[in-house]
Amino acid sequence: MVNIKPYIKEHEQRFLNELIELLKIPSISADSTYKNDVLKTADEIKISLEKAGCDHVEICQTEGYPIVYGEKTIDKNLPTVLVYGHYDVQPPDPLDLWHSPPFEPVIKKTETHPEGAVFARGACDDKGQMYMHVKALEFMTRTNQLPCNVKFMIEGEEEVGSPNLAIFVKENQEKLKNDVILISDTGMIAPDVPSITTGLRGLSYVEVEVTGPNRDLHSGLYGGAVANPINVLAKMIASLHDENNHITIPGFYDKVEELTQEERQQMAKAPFNLEEYKKALDINAVYGEAGYTTNERNSIRPTLDVNGIWGGYTGEGAKTVIASKAYAKISMRLVPHQDWEEITQLFKTHFESIAPAGVTVKVKPHHGGQGYVTPIDSIGYQSASKAYQDTFCKTPIPQRSGGSIPIVSLFEQELKSKTILMGFGLDSDAIHSPNEHFGIFNYLKGIETIPLFYKYFTELSK
Amino acid sequence: MVNIKPYIKEHEQRFLNELIELLKIPSISADSTYKNDVLKTADEIKISLEKAGCDHVEICQTEGYPIVYGEKTIDKNLPTVLVYGHYDVQPPDPLDLWHSPPFEPVIKKTETHPEGAVFARGACDDKGQMYMHVKALEFMTRTNQLPCNVKFMIEGEEEVGSPNLAIFVKENQEKLKNDVILISDTGMIAPDVPSITTGLRGLSYVEVEVTGPNRDLHSGLYGGAVANPINVLAKMIASLHDENNHITIPGFYDKVEELTQEERQQMAKAPFNLEEYKKALDINAVYGEAGYTTNERNSIRPTLDVNGIWGGYTGEGAKTVIASKAYAKISMRLVPHQDWEEITQLFKTHFESIAPAGVTVKVKPHHGGQGYVTPIDSIGYQSASKAYQDTFCKTPIPQRSGGSIPIVSLFEQELKSKTILMGFGLDSDAIHSPNEHFGIFNYLKGIETIPLFYKYFTELSK
Repeated sequence: MVNIKPYIKEHEQRFLNELIELLKIPSISADSTYKNDVLKTADEIKISLEKAGCDHVEICQTEGYPIVYGEKTIDKNLPTVLVYGHYDVQPPDPLDLWHSPPFEPVIKKTETHPEGAVFARGACDDKGQMYMHVKALEFMTRTNQLPCNVKFMIEGEEEVGSPNLAIFVKENQEKLKNDVILISDTGMIAPDVPSITTGLRGLSYVEVEVTGPNRDLHSGLYGGAVANPINVLAKMIASLHDENNHITIPGFYDKVEELTQEERQQMAKAPFNLEEYKKALDINAVYGEAGYTTNERNSIRPTLDVNGIWGGYTGEGAKTVIASKAYAKISMRLVPHQDWEEITQLFKTHFESIAPAGVTVKVKPHHGGQGYVTPIDSIGYQSASKAYQDTFCKTPIPQRSGGSIPIVSLFEQELKSKTILMGFGLDSDAIHSPNEHFGIFNYLKGIETIPLFYKYFTELSK
Repeated sequence: MVNIKPYIKEHEQRFLNELIELLKIPSISADSTYKNDVLKTADEIKISLEKAGCDHVEICQTEGYPIVYGEKTIDKNLPTVLVYGHYDVQPPDPLDLWHSPPFEPVIKKTETHPEGAVFARGACDDKGQMYMHVKALEFMTRTNQLPCNVKFMIEGEEEVGSPNLAIFVKENQEKLKNDVILISDTGMIAPDVPSITTGLRGLSYVEVEVTGPNRDLHSGLYGGAVANPINVLAKMIASLHDENNHITIPGFYDKVEELTQEERQQMAKAPFNLEEYKKALDINAVYGEAGYTTNERNSIRPTLDVNGIWGGYTGEGAKTVIASKAYAKISMRLVPHQDWEEITQLFKTHFESIAPAGVTVKVKPHHGGQGYVTPIDSIGYQSASKAYQDTFCKTPIPQRSGGSIPIVSLFEQELKSKTILMGFGLDSDAIHSPNEHFGIFNYLKGIETIPLFYKYFTELSK
């Protein structure tokens, strides 16, 4: 395979401009007011895949947002790589914390990204990382070096739990048939420390509603005499962790995979500086489950976090009211062997059982997904490892991510193939946060590395 | 004094129409976007006092919203009654729970109000009750029966803690000189059970802010490894009550007035039906401090309630985020002898002290006021009692209210006179709630009873 570097140099500016145009469209799948923008983004992805050399691209309708499918088949006897990514993005709020509008991309240099980074919602998660694959394909087709077949499946509902992808995958097993699935929707340890994500956490996301009196009440006339839904919700949430920050839901840990001391020692080798970690977040201390390190807490251990809470008067000034209702959005990150539907049920049963007299509690499951682990002795992992070695001159470190890509375990179940997670983002890229960005170095390095995965995967598959 | 009933019959419709016009103005003092409406309301009050017969009315500017002052002096040697009320109202939200727009008054019959009630924000608290005094004055002046001097002081910042009233009172002691203060901003037990409020709770209102990481974080990458401000806030709020629902702030109960068994037995005589109370609120159980009845919990005992809470993603759908900040508005109702500024400081010190490592906590005091108790052997109380006996043919029951009118204790301190709380609203009138209303029967009964207070107070003062 000829060196891609000159091609990247020549088209670098265009690669950036095309991504910036894509980032200008607010494809927020969680908020229905952006419906047309999400749909428009799907159309743009279709066009870009056609330009990149796919010989068949279609927009596949679902109950929700469509899935863009594309393929380039050169020889039925050669292996097939299925690329998955998503074109939808997280809501950008809180808007006031963005230094530039989330959908008006700007390039700025940072300490971590001396060569500059693109600041915009979706820059890293996942438009930027997904688009690396489109550009890598462009290189391979224009230079006639595509060594195998490739399929693309780019969805628009990842940030809301991929409610329709499962159905699509189940109904299109033949079309999606492949030998390995390739995803760039995770991160690497540092720009000079390549890593391959070998594990993902599962997810259970629920919304709870606590109802007390049938109307808002004057806190003077009723205060102290009736259950206050906000106080009750706070008490119930607080009770979900014990003094060691273990989760108190009965049965929650029953199926949790316990790593061996050796595995934990292996993990501990990954470079990590607690002081820098705290400094980057402006916190005076980390916090979490007793008996585990920070890296273990956010990768191999399950967690429970409130993602949003609201109730009563939240406007300017003061209002002496006892709210009729209080709400919270709560998500649990799960580890391998924990079944997300079972955990969701355990949460529901427990949370409803701890409601005190005087209130009623509703638990509404939002969505979820299973955890996942990739074996590092697979052809796919080895091919990715070799690709990184060529472009970073370093062997990538296998790492467990705390994040979740629920559909990965679905792919294995339905398509019977393993997923390789080649992520080029950084934890500091602020995905899901204000000022999300993606380093230009990382973007181009991804485009450079991906074709080598195709090369090695084809060779090792012989 | 001639019977007022024929006069009320004759002008009943006008009394109602004038109140309805007043209720159409959204004088929400807590929300600065309604500034012009609040100011417009002050002008309307001035006009109504002039029409009612005051010989001097002025709009007194303050640092905030103005105070409308009016007076009618007939003889310096006769006693003077100072009427206090407020023309501002609570914010109407949540708007979706109103059956008709909060500032488009409608009259509807209810089970409690078979003769109809005016539904609108401020109908009872306090525009309706304040306006009864304006109409009572109108009757006394038009029929030349005003037996003493009267002064009005109607403010526009009661719902935000009367930040400027104290200064006004301190600076205008001569102008406000009086023999008794009359306020209708409380309730009565039932339409056929007149009562006079003899006690008010104090108030301390604070806003708390919990800050964790310096930006919103992805809950997958950081979940379980850093303190989540919402989880922490929930834990901190939960810890403010123990298993008996006693408040855990050190020193909080030190100065609480403990009633004798006899006093508690007297209180217990007030008609109260727990089943009806629960039914009216749609709750299966009451909730509160162990060892006290519902009526004690909301009158003679101090309380702590969260009035509002917010943080993280509260929009449609799901967002897997760990918020950088979480907030709550918390108010404490205080009983006689508890000093609100001391309690606010105790709260601040305690709340900041229980913040775990990994977060920083800010406590911002909003406002507050002292509790108050009025002696039932005073001339003022006796005059009110006689007035009620004439119009209801029943001796009114003295009752402690759970609510707060912080300025009442200020009046006693600065103006050296007692306040008589003649309330004609009902607990079920939903003040501070959606669908606030005021019974037409109560409105007219107030207008009928007030002149008799003037009569008896003048007689008993001789």
